[in-house]
Amino acid sequence: MKPNDALAAALSAELDAVNTLIKERMASKHAPRIPEVTAHLIEAGGKRLRPMLVLAAAKMCGYTGPYHIHLATTVEFIHTATLLHDDVVDESQQRRGRPTANLLWDNQSSVLVGDYLFARAFQMMVEPGNLRVLDILSSSAAVITEGEVLQLSVAQELKTTEETYLTVVRGKTAALFSAATQSGAVLAEAPEEHIEALYTYGDALGIAFQMADDLLDYLGDSGQTGKNVGDDFRERKMTLPVIRAIAAADEEEMAFWTRTIARGKQVEGDLDQAMALFAKHDTLESTRQTALDWSETARRALQVLPQSELRDTLSDLAAYVVARLN
Amino acid sequence: MKPNDALAAALSAELDAVNTLIKERMASKHAPRIPEVTAHLIEAGGKRLRPMLVLAAAKMCGYTGPYHIHLATTVEFIHTATLLHDDVVDESQQRRGRPTANLLWDNQSSVLVGDYLFARAFQMMVEPGNLRVLDILSSSAAVITEGEVLQLSVAQELKTTEETYLTVVRGKTAALFSAATQSGAVLAEAPEEHIEALYTYGDALGIAFQMADDLLDYLGDSGQTGKNVGDDFRERKMTLPVIRAIAAADEEEMAFWTRTIARGKQVEGDLDQAMALFAKHDTLESTRQTALDWSETARRALQVLPQSELRDTLSDLAAYVVARLN
Repeated sequence: MKPNDALAAALSAELDAVNTLIKERMASKHAPRIPEVTAHLIEAGGKRLRPMLVLAAAKMCGYTGPYHIHLATTVEFIHTATLLHDDVVDESQQRRGRPTANLLWDNQSSVLVGDYLFARAFQMMVEPGNLRVLDILSSSAAVITEGEVLQLSVAQELKTTEETYLTVVRGKTAALFSAATQSGAVLAEAPEEHIEALYTYGDALGIAFQMADDLLDYLGDSGQTGKNVGDDFRERKMTLPVIRAIAAADEEEMAFWTRTIARGKQVEGDLDQAMALFAKHDTLESTRQTALDWSETARRALQVLPQSELRDTLSDLAAYVVARLN
Repeated sequence: MKPNDALAAALSAELDAVNTLIKERMASKHAPRIPEVTAHLIEAGGKRLRPMLVLAAAKMCGYTGPYHIHLATTVEFIHTATLLHDDVVDESQQRRGRPTANLLWDNQSSVLVGDYLFARAFQMMVEPGNLRVLDILSSSAAVITEGEVLQLSVAQELKTTEETYLTVVRGKTAALFSAATQSGAVLAEAPEEHIEALYTYGDALGIAFQMADDLLDYLGDSGQTGKNVGDDFRERKMTLPVIRAIAAADEEEMAFWTRTIARGKQVEGDLDQAMALFAKHDTLESTRQTALDWSETARRALQVLPQSELRDTLSDLAAYVVARLN
């Protein structure tokens, strides 16, 4: 069984409660457009990975109250809100194999329904009455949105460093993963050492996950992402394989990157040339190695926690997100 | 002196602190685009009305701590975020007499910087550590965003009722006004009766304010709003004068409204015809009277509070927002 399926099985009662709360809280007395748009996205085969991270962390740390359900729903709402806004920003046409909300309705609805989900998320996170949880989740929202703006600013910017890339990746993916695991542990009043470990796990898992995603854009993964090989190249995204190829580039190679990424004047054969430069500087393999290192960091972090089935499944999950790269 | 100027004078030290905190919290270590976009809007002659409502309420209720500054900054950030997103949704070109951010930068920046300001607002509202304040402010954000979606759904909808109009107006304006005054009073640990009074004041002030704005769209106010007479008619907005004219319309008039508002097939002379129908059914005058009633509700609510200069200025402010209609 895949680790995310194993996680879903171990947390099935809690996930049912999350799905009920999602339905309840996405409702709107006054504006029926809201649940329409939300349902389109939230029910469309999302894997509920982020909610499961909250639930698993809280349960592993012995939480017995009702509020991990609220926090799990909160992170799913934040995630859904960012997807709605991302699709507007990127002018996307497809998400999870279906037309995007901005295409089915309009940009206006996507912007405003995203705002509504943000607001409902914040309302919900207040309910457990735990100020530290509030601090973690609201700060993660700031990191996420800052990362999105940063990504916009550094797009097509050849001087993007690995450090900046990591900041973008944290905003895009890792900040919500780590807020999910950390807030679950804080809610359960776990010892500081365990809270810290679950934070590190979420952070490293998110980075490994996003790095693998960026790498699969060049490696291909038999249609699993629904994207074509080289989409990121065509969209001139500064991901790790490109950043490292540019760092190692000679003058002639630099001219190639300036033309294709900075100026966006791409012609037939450029993707092949980019792949050749990745091979020359071994940047796909080195990126894979970095993703494996982050996966290993995630797994190691879990070791301070008491052994449990959930802990083993989380560890398998960290291995799984990079196993796609072999 | 105008009441908002009197309020600014009475709260000048606090407003300085708010402006300092705004600068501090809109900064971004990673994404310089954020303060650029924010500064363009937040420094462009905003009257800081919403922050002043927080500050006045807290001060009137005897608050002596530092956190009214945070709440005041929070409501200004929420307000600014909604303006950024509104301008994207409405495809606006101008705001406060300057080109909008979506025009100067792009829609992407406006969406994402708005999200960042929302997140920063939520982060900031956690700082006072007051769960009731958090509940008030996060719920107001839900009402605001729900109202925005509702407004989008009922646009050009001839069946819009006065009740729906009021829900939209609360979302657009009154919810943040009432959250501002109520949260200031709660922060100051005022008696329930005073908290309730300040809630009612903010709610009624916001409704009077928005109703006056909608009415001035047809009356004109010598360029103060920077809009032209009848813009709302051309944009087919269902404001109170139109809703009431439709409620009183005979068959022929109904055909006029169906053509001009529902179908949007407007021709030269239609605005004059609309004005004639307003006059026939006296809907501009009746809307003015309703706005005056809300202003009076706001003023009456203040009477349970101990007399003070700030109380009198808030009362003057409620009179002032509808005085423009005479």
